[in-house]
Amino acid sequence: MDEQHRPRKVTRADVARLSGVSTAVVSYVLNDGPKPVATVTRERVLEAVRVLGYRPNAAARALSRGTADTIGMIVVDSRNPFFAQLLHALDRASVRHGRSLLIVNSDRERQSAVEQVHDLVARQIGGLIIADVLTETEQEVVASLGIPTLLVNQYTGANGFLPAMGVDFRAGAKQAVDHLTGHGYRDVAFVGGALAIDQRERGWADALREAGLPLGQSVHAPFSYEGGLAAGRAIAADPARPRAVFAASDQIAVGLLAAFSDAGLRVPEDVAVVSFDGTTEAAYTRPALTTVAQPIAEMADAAIRRLADGDGAPGFTTFPTELVVRRSCGCEHSAS
Amino acid sequence: MDEQHRPRKVTRADVARLSGVSTAVVSYVLNDGPKPVATVTRERVLEAVRVLGYRPNAAARALSRGTADTIGMIVVDSRNPFFAQLLHALDRASVRHGRSLLIVNSDRERQSAVEQVHDLVARQIGGLIIADVLTETEQEVVASLGIPTLLVNQYTGANGFLPAMGVDFRAGAKQAVDHLTGHGYRDVAFVGGALAIDQRERGWADALREAGLPLGQSVHAPFSYEGGLAAGRAIAADPARPRAVFAASDQIAVGLLAAFSDAGLRVPEDVAVVSFDGTTEAAYTRPALTTVAQPIAEMADAAIRRLADGDGAPGFTTFPTELVVRRSCGCEHSAS
Repeated sequence: MDEQHRPRKVTRADVARLSGVSTAVVSYVLNDGPKPVATVTRERVLEAVRVLGYRPNAAARALSRGTADTIGMIVVDSRNPFFAQLLHALDRASVRHGRSLLIVNSDRERQSAVEQVHDLVARQIGGLIIADVLTETEQEVVASLGIPTLLVNQYTGANGFLPAMGVDFRAGAKQAVDHLTGHGYRDVAFVGGALAIDQRERGWADALREAGLPLGQSVHAPFSYEGGLAAGRAIAADPARPRAVFAASDQIAVGLLAAFSDAGLRVPEDVAVVSFDGTTEAAYTRPALTTVAQPIAEMADAAIRRLADGDGAPGFTTFPTELVVRRSCGCEHSAS
Repeated sequence: MDEQHRPRKVTRADVARLSGVSTAVVSYVLNDGPKPVATVTRERVLEAVRVLGYRPNAAARALSRGTADTIGMIVVDSRNPFFAQLLHALDRASVRHGRSLLIVNSDRERQSAVEQVHDLVARQIGGLIIADVLTETEQEVVASLGIPTLLVNQYTGANGFLPAMGVDFRAGAKQAVDHLTGHGYRDVAFVGGALAIDQRERGWADALREAGLPLGQSVHAPFSYEGGLAAGRAIAADPARPRAVFAASDQIAVGLLAAFSDAGLRVPEDVAVVSFDGTTEAAYTRPALTTVAQPIAEMADAAIRRLADGDGAPGFTTFPTELVVRRSCGCEHSAS
């Protein structure tokens, strides 16, 4: 195939010629700035764009920023406030590093993670962030594609195929339960994901063991408001009700607060609650939630920096969590 | 440039040849299914992928599903639970219609809406959904690109350039305030966006006027938890405190509930609250929020269907809202 036989691509200069303006004015119209353009002139330029079928910059952009500057992201469920905030932080960090972020939601009923990665790779990306749990095989396949990839918010360390980052869920959970036992509560329950995937249950057990306390009740619940509500109803109805609960996410804790309120239980007077994630909404429940905060902005910045630097060495980078003390644990000295 | 001078593209057959398996087995490995592959074989295939630098399907996928099957989406702030849920519903609807959704967050500090649209168009999309408010000029520029485009969740009707859809914000707000005046509250305040962009303030005024009541206090606040908290503090401290408040979003209402709780005010006994959006979290506050629900799933399905059908006629499609009655308004007959 020869270049001459293809229809010549319509350029900005063609639009300028047809509408009788400079190419700069065409740019101002199509980018809606930086300089203003008179309505009459704008109409003329847009008419020329329509007549010629001009697609502004599409090819040039795809070429100049397409591959290197775009980071693809796969996120497990962006309705979860933690993931929504992580996504937003990654977007902001991308901008600071001159990158842009292209997001797909991962829905495992539809496509395997590997298929989604293929789809993103086909769209000219220079890096990939996966906020979802991949099997070892999936990691191996993704690693073979040669696209700089980073797993974020993984429960477990790297499997040796891809670099990963996230908080130390086990240590963070221990921090939460240490705080509860520090209040003198001797019967502390856990509400969260199944043991196989959730290190937070181990951290809860570590803290109780270290404090010489028996293991409390462990309730496995979906990571959702509804999951927390159902777990909270079961706990409230239990004659051997625990004095305190560690919830593996803020969303679960919001559900617990609703269930305890419905059952006429006061938080923290009857049941104390500490949760995990440090999302914005944890500050707006009443009582406000004491929560183990993940350093969302810091992780997002490190993730984008790492992809920008092309550092693809496997291994797990751990970020410290911080206990944000509010009222739900029983501390009364906090402002909110 | 001549085709012969380019390096030949590595194919799946090359990978199969080098690893000594069929092309079907190569597919099973790279797609992680549908059939299982022995570990030893998998390793051999992945090694061949690495050695040859094979990029599975990238070109074929870009060609076969790139343009027609992908819908680009620009969303103003995916941290807002309403937008997060709308996004998720659009993603699910895309799947049902054999499409996929590619999302960018719109951050106006960084890029104009028009620049973001250009960036998405450069990535081979066959349709565009914009969940943000565009100026008339922006709409005109986007319309000139010839990409099927739909504005969702607009406050105002179409400007004649692009098709738009959303609920009737004014009628929905009136529904909320009618319910509050139906409870006998005569002093109903409004908390929400500025009048110029938010039709809900008009709906609030319509209802009060129709009920023969004076206009209550109107507080303009950002659409956030913090915005609701600040507005709620101002209302709680006001000696002429209103008996009821209509909040323009569930997020604002969550902030109001926190402020009222901090001030020792009971909802609904001292101040009744009705909000807008019908997000999941509105069911998990205590008291649970009575809210004007937007038909998120229905709108998402209609949006994707419309883009899939290529129906690009300008005009505004209105969806009805539904009042979901819980406890915050003063109704006690609800389950939650």
